[in-house]
This record gives sequence, structure tokens and C-alpha cells, in this order.
Amino acid sequence: MAEDRGPGPGPGFSPEEDLIATWFRPIATHPGAFDLTDDAAAITPPPGCDLVLKTDGVVSGVHFFADDPADAVARKALRINLSDLAAKGAEPLGFLMAIGLPSGLPPDWLAEFARGLGEDAAHYRCPLLGGDTDRSPGAITVYIMALGTVPHGSMVRRRGARPGDVIVVTGTIGDAALGLKLRRDGAAAARFGLDDAAAAHLRARYRLPEPRTAVAAALRRHATAAMDVSDGLAGDLAKLARVSGVAAEVAVPDVPLSAAARRAVAAVPALVETVLTGGDDFEVLATVPKERLADLCGEAEAAGVAVTPIGDVAAGHGTRLRDASGRALTFARPSYSHF
Amino acid sequence: MAEDRGPGPGPGFSPEEDLIATWFRPIATHPGAFDLTDDAAAITPPPGCDLVLKTDGVVSGVHFFADDPADAVARKALRINLSDLAAKGAEPLGFLMAIGLPSGLPPDWLAEFARGLGEDAAHYRCPLLGGDTDRSPGAITVYIMALGTVPHGSMVRRRGARPGDVIVVTGTIGDAALGLKLRRDGAAAARFGLDDAAAAHLRARYRLPEPRTAVAAALRRHATAAMDVSDGLAGDLAKLARVSGVAAEVAVPDVPLSAAARRAVAAVPALVETVLTGGDDFEVLATVPKERLADLCGEAEAAGVAVTPIGDVAAGHGTRLRDASGRALTFARPSYSHF
Repeated sequence: MAEDRGPGPGPGFSPEEDLIATWFRPIATHPGAFDLTDDAAAITPPPGCDLVLKTDGVVSGVHFFADDPADAVARKALRINLSDLAAKGAEPLGFLMAIGLPSGLPPDWLAEFARGLGEDAAHYRCPLLGGDTDRSPGAITVYIMALGTVPHGSMVRRRGARPGDVIVVTGTIGDAALGLKLRRDGAAAARFGLDDAAAAHLRARYRLPEPRTAVAAALRRHATAAMDVSDGLAGDLAKLARVSGVAAEVAVPDVPLSAAARRAVAAVPALVETVLTGGDDFEVLATVPKERLADLCGEAEAAGVAVTPIGDVAAGHGTRLRDASGRALTFARPSYSHF
Repeated sequence: MAEDRGPGPGPGFSPEEDLIATWFRPIATHPGAFDLTDDAAAITPPPGCDLVLKTDGVVSGVHFFADDPADAVARKALRINLSDLAAKGAEPLGFLMAIGLPSGLPPDWLAEFARGLGEDAAHYRCPLLGGDTDRSPGAITVYIMALGTVPHGSMVRRRGARPGDVIVVTGTIGDAALGLKLRRDGAAAARFGLDDAAAAHLRARYRLPEPRTAVAAALRRHATAAMDVSDGLAGDLAKLARVSGVAAEVAVPDVPLSAAARRAVAAVPALVETVLTGGDDFEVLATVPKERLADLCGEAEAAGVAVTPIGDVAAGHGTRLRDASGRALTFARPSYSHF
């Protein structure tokens, strides 16, 4: 991969060391990363804090398209983990990354990957701590393990929703699942009644999630339970309700949609199922006591993130999603599952 | 994958949740794993400790053979990370795991994988904290992020070797690289003059590394620098010497070999290059002040691990490996590199 290489660490270094020093050392700004010259990282946890740990990965052909821009692949891999940290109320501390690269990538692929990763690591204040770089026999694989911090005992759990709580989500729901449909089917935009700008918006929402890091502190203060929506709102809410031992009821007309998603659902009403079950939203789903709702919404808005009430928690079990006429919607597959 | 499944968590759960609950929840014995029912793990770091972080993975066709026993794949994935923790002087705390599984694995593959993983997690006191389970388009991929603890500031670095220090290794060197040759070439055992037991020993050393967790504390007390030998003794020693700013000289006849490896090298002297550069040893390479050598060896031996002096650190730079006649050996490729 000589053509990939900028100025390396010097003679006597293996190509793997060269690659790491050239592309990844600049992102490893945490002192405990030891400039990636050691076998492991060491961090001194902030006193009084718990560490929140998450691992998630992206694989070409499964989570992204092999010809997606390399910088977007890196950003998505990091952001899906930051999304989980945010939903747990955690502030980013750093991340480890294990990548598997097939041979034959374009010469500038790694440079672009590192550029995207470095820009996001700086923006979200989440430096690279260490990693592993391997050859892959086929797919591009990027696994990230993100570490965040919360004051001791304050991670926002999935378990914790209580009858009477309000169910809220950040941002808009369904964009990414619609964007994936558009990415897979060039004719879908016309069927969905979308102009180029609307279609581009939805595709971008699939390609580049926006982790809601800005609401982490407000979630810690106010939420009784939270998780990020990655496998579809319907299924993820069912998981949250089940582990909390409560029932959940959502008013589907209250679920916030982008203008583009609203247009698509108006053109093809069956797309409401895609919106509610498709996944890859990477928005935060949370429950909050009624008396805290205004504070949560206000603090989130001040941080630049819309928070919208979509339903209520009740005693009992089960999740109901009711349309405008009060009818409960049912779906063949409420949640994305790899298996 | 219905045929893989033992008793699951019950109705209403996705196949992915079912898989996780059935096979991995029993290994997630750390309270901060929340029985794998949350999106992230939370750990309260032991007071006064640093956390040592390492990620390494195995991919079928790259690090193991697709038809290797599933339990051995799991054990190897965990052990190569535990080997790094041990070399850094860290005690295991727990691990995250991201696995990608292709379709079409044998029905009992996951059960065997989980059995091996669970047995090793218990044996090394390193519980599962969380993870990610995906479909893989091709290879089996297992990435692990291991966390260990050391008293604050006491991680044993690569950098730290000083002129006058003695260079030591644990166990025996070269077995795994020879074992890989045997695994790839059925006729090699006869050429190498190995009977079935000797060949089986070497193949097993490739398939199942033995992390030197037992010497972690002794390394913290006595070593000036350490790393695990994963890319070949020659190249890894060169890395350690370079980052420490010192020269290293090894007496090749002092490098400890198993009886099987000695026999192979006697039959085919050129195999000394395989032994010294082949990698996958997962032994600890360390430097220790002369006056601490007896303590390190004694404490390691009491913990059941042989530690053998193989050379000396000197002022200057460069790594020399001298044979019995004092001639410096040179190798075309001193170290394994994926790139």
C-alpha cells in the first residue's frame, strides 16, 4: 500500500507501523494512547465516575455500501457508538478501533477514512486510544469500542420507565430507513414523490447519523430510561418497555418526521411501517416524568436538539402504536434483527 | 438459526436477543453487564487503579482456519487480548466482544463457541461486559476489547528498557509458527522429523495461546519494559528496543525452545527463522535490571511460568541475534505485518 502513505515514522518500521503512525497517530491525542507506540492504552478514570462501555461495528455490504465515501464509513462507525453513549447519559472519553481492510482499496481510501475519523474524533472530543489493523479476506470491517463517563451510578438505563412517564424522541424518526430504500432503488424517489433535495436529505441521514451527545447531561438529570433507536422505534420501544416492566402507548401522528419523510409517507402510506420499524435512526428514545418534560425539552432545545413527546408509559405490558383514528398498528417485523 | 437455540428468554424477543440471552448472558457475570439487557455496560473503576485497554481480533482465513473448533476460536480471540494485558502487568477486569457470523455455520457452532468463551472467561476471571452480534457477509470475525487494571501509573510500557537490563521471555518461542506450518502442510511433520505427539504439541500451540496472566504482578514489580510476542520475537524485540532508545542483543542458543521445536530446527536448521520471526507466540518479552532477574524468575516460577534470560540491553540502537558462533543472523522479514 505504498501509494497510500504520507510521511511515515522512518526507516526500520514495518508497513503496519508505518500505516498506523501516518494515519492514526494524529487522532490518538489522549495521553493514555502513548502515541500508539505501545501494546495497550492506559486511562486514569476521572474520580467519582463510572465508565460506560459500548461496542458496535459496521461491515461493508451489511451496514454500508462498499462504495460509500471512506470518510463517511469512519464517521458512521464512530457515531453509532457515540449515539449509544449519548442515550446512556455519558460524555465521550475515547475509543478503540479494530479495522479489517481488504486489498485493492483505492489509493486514497485510508487517507479519507482517517480524515473523517479525525474530524469526528475532534468534534465529539473522543480521541482514539488504540486499535488493531488487519487484512480482511473480503469485507471492510470497522469495529469501535467507545468509552464514556458518567457520575457514579448515573448511567441512564433501559430499565427504569415508570407508569405515568412521557415517552419522547430526539430529532426525527424514519429518515435513515427511507434513505436506505432510496439508496437501494433508484426509482423509489419518484414513487415516494421526493424531489432531489428531499431524497438527498434522507440518504444523508442513512449515511451519517447524528449522535445526540448534546443531550447526554439533560438525560442524566431528567430521564427515567433511555436507549438509542437503532433497530426501529417500534421494536426498540418494546425492548425498553419490556425490561422496565411497563406498557407503552405511542400516538403515531405525534412521531416527529422530517419534511421529506412526511412527503414520502403521504405518497405511499405503507411507508409508515418503514419509518417505525426500519432502524438506523440513531435518535434517543427516552421516558421522563411528566413534571420533568418541560425541563428536558428546554435543556435539549438549548443544546440544539428537538425533543418531542410521542406517547405515555402505563402499568401493564405490551407496546401499542395508534394511528390518527386510534387503531393499533401491527407489523410483521417490529424490529431489525441480524438473525 | 432455530436449531442452534437452547432455552431462550421467551416469546416476544427477537432472534438476536434470543441468541444473546441463550449463549452469552451466562458469561456476562459482571454486575455492570446488566445481564446484557442494556445498550452499554457500566463499570466503577477500582479506586487508585488505571484501566489498561486492548483490542485485538481474529478473522477466519487470516488468524484461524474456518474449520477450527468453535471453542478454540473463542478461546484464541480472548487469550490474545489477555496476553497483552499480562505483558502490561494488568489483571483482567472484563471484555467486550463484537462478532460477525456468516450464515451456514454448523448447528452447534455457537454453542461450542460460547462454551469455550465461557470456560476461559471463568478461568481467567474476565467476564463478558457487553458486545455486538452481526451477520457477516463472509468470514467469521471475532473482535474483543479487554480491560485490565493496574495500580495507578504502573502499566508496564514498551518504552523503559535500559542499558544493562537483561532480556527475558516466558515459556518457549516459535512453537506456534511451526504449528502453523504443520497445519498448512500435511507433509511438513515428516520433513521436520516430528512424531505425532510433537506435531500435535506445535499445532496446539498455534491454536490455543496461553496468556501469561500469572506473571502480571511480577512484571509490574520488576520489569522495566514488556510486551507480548505476537509478530515474532526478532521484530517485536526490535520494536521494544527502538521505542526505548536502546540496543538489544540476543544469544539465539539461549532462546527457550520446546522439545518439539528443538527437534524441528535440528532437522531443518533454516526453521530458526520461522522460530524467531514467525509470530503468534503470545509469550511475554521483557527487560529487567540484572539485580531483579532472580526475583522475577523466582516469582514467575512460583506462579508456574518459566522465565528465561536470552540477551542484554545496551546503549545504542539496533537488534542483533547471534548464533552459537557469534554470527549475527539477518532475516528478510523480521516481523509479521498485515500490510
